[in-house]
Amino acid sequence: MLPHGGDLSAARRQFPNVAEPFIDLSTGINPHSYPIPQLSPDLFARLPQQGALTRLLAAAAKAYGAPSPAHVVAAPGTSILLPAVAALMQRGRARVLGPTYAEHLRAAALAGHSAREAGDIGELEDADLAVVVNPNNPDGRLLTRDALISLADALHSHGGLLVVDEAFMDVASPAASLAGEVARANVVVLRSFGKFFGLAGLRLGFVLAAPEAVSRLAAWLGPWAVAGPAIAIGEAALADAPWARLTREALRREAQRLDDTLAEGGLAVIGGTSLFRLVHTPAADALFHHLGRTGIMVRRFAQHPEWLRFGLPGDDEAWRRLRAALAGFPRTARSEPASSA
Amino acid sequence: MLPHGGDLSAARRQFPNVAEPFIDLSTGINPHSYPIPQLSPDLFARLPQQGALTRLLAAAAKAYGAPSPAHVVAAPGTSILLPAVAALMQRGRARVLGPTYAEHLRAAALAGHSAREAGDIGELEDADLAVVVNPNNPDGRLLTRDALISLADALHSHGGLLVVDEAFMDVASPAASLAGEVARANVVVLRSFGKFFGLAGLRLGFVLAAPEAVSRLAAWLGPWAVAGPAIAIGEAALADAPWARLTREALRREAQRLDDTLAEGGLAVIGGTSLFRLVHTPAADALFHHLGRTGIMVRRFAQHPEWLRFGLPGDDEAWRRLRAALAGFPRTARSEPASSA
Repeated sequence: MLPHGGDLSAARRQFPNVAEPFIDLSTGINPHSYPIPQLSPDLFARLPQQGALTRLLAAAAKAYGAPSPAHVVAAPGTSILLPAVAALMQRGRARVLGPTYAEHLRAAALAGHSAREAGDIGELEDADLAVVVNPNNPDGRLLTRDALISLADALHSHGGLLVVDEAFMDVASPAASLAGEVARANVVVLRSFGKFFGLAGLRLGFVLAAPEAVSRLAAWLGPWAVAGPAIAIGEAALADAPWARLTREALRREAQRLDDTLAEGGLAVIGGTSLFRLVHTPAADALFHHLGRTGIMVRRFAQHPEWLRFGLPGDDEAWRRLRAALAGFPRTARSEPASSA
Repeated sequence: MLPHGGDLSAARRQFPNVAEPFIDLSTGINPHSYPIPQLSPDLFARLPQQGALTRLLAAAAKAYGAPSPAHVVAAPGTSILLPAVAALMQRGRARVLGPTYAEHLRAAALAGHSAREAGDIGELEDADLAVVVNPNNPDGRLLTRDALISLADALHSHGGLLVVDEAFMDVASPAASLAGEVARANVVVLRSFGKFFGLAGLRLGFVLAAPEAVSRLAAWLGPWAVAGPAIAIGEAALADAPWARLTREALRREAQRLDDTLAEGGLAVIGGTSLFRLVHTPAADALFHHLGRTGIMVRRFAQHPEWLRFGLPGDDEAWRRLRAALAGFPRTARSEPASSA
């Protein structure tokens, strides 16, 4: 089973000779990308400029609600920073609230922690490094700001660090974000750029943290971590509040449409965000292969063989093909138990 | 003094109200960039594709002469990988052959080593981590392959690691590269993409190393370290051997032209590569400011106040302005000792 979604070449190997274009619903990336502005050749040719990076950090601080640009570091995606974020703490006990995105556990182990998944927020309180994805991927579980601040306080009493991955917070309630709390030395917030703005290939992400942690992470990244085009596009997109507002509304409508489509197909949605919906069905394995054979890739989970995650179709044809594929899933297959993944 | 070259916004702050365009000769980046192919919007929108990355690694292994693609890892520039490369060794004594690019010493210290500069290759033999930039920046000193293999052997006898930064090897003799030797577990080679191809804003670099080290570095980088556009452009450029050959020849001619221009201006070139030339003059400080006031930025060095490094002018107008600025440098200033940097 693939460790991540979004790899079309792997999907084509798994399901050769199917209808093109292959429809990738295996990620939680907005299919309606922020329009890429005209890019000056200098952005590719010259080293990234410090002045442009400074403007990007200011735009990110404002868009995300961080206390100041000194509380923000930019990276080529958040994934690349996960081991360095985990290494902000001396080696100790890392606990990741699961089930969730697998990279956090991997990064904590890489940084030398004794790392395991926790099933309940209460189990995080005595960790040295506590990691929460909020809203969570794949089930969309949203912890309140108050619950997380209580957790941060509990961690603070013994020197523990709270890392909140807000990769999908752009489509949730801004009131739930901990971005405004990162002046606390033991709260670190991760924000993805590529998912909400539909530009995952650009590689851009941010860590919001106290200035001392920001300095340590910036030192690890070195002087030119983020590419010139990513800095320019990121600054323009993060400053475009009207686009963000309209996009949040549009994604909410499309998530509703996806729920309706899945319900028509007899599937029970058990969670998600506006960028993906999680389905529980005993026929997950059969449905995954049925969809694959019609050229539609969804995301499955090794640890949860009865789950499938659906991203948003990007155009009318993709919606039509998804509806048709769900309607064509044999009734007899619907109650089949999932085979081993 | 700026820690690095290439930051035009900082240069404009230092020398406001000068002729535009500001001419940046403060880097060693090819001013004639590899032509950027038409980029599909998917490269920006989708997560970077594993199949495309595999093709990039194959193109890099072939272009650089690594034993196989399994000996190559791609990163968003080499700078971002320097601490992780230094961390391939347990904390110990790191020695960087100086004077050279400052980031190596910084990265070794960040990775926990006791790091200092060495003045002679012989001082590297008993290091745990030995770092050599070859050809060297800024003086162009080129160590032979044999000398480096002897050093690798000496290091091997006590478990030491040799890191050779070949950021400027594209314009030197391929026979001097250690890329073919990275199957040895204690030899790691760094290659920059952006300098020779004139695409420093793209952020792309490679580590050539034994497969075990490649796996460790790839794990640190995570699944999507390099941006989609960088993967696509990198693959096309690295596979374009005719462009590389013509460019090497053209850069050699331009470096000769730069030497002639500097000599006309009464300046002594003491080293360099085809991408930059190093000048020694007691009037370095005065000349730096004179050039800055004419809108030409060159690179100076805090530890070597009598040095200036000149990159290649990019067009006829830049050549003309450089010649004029050198001719206009007052004779009386030429023997002025450098003031404190």
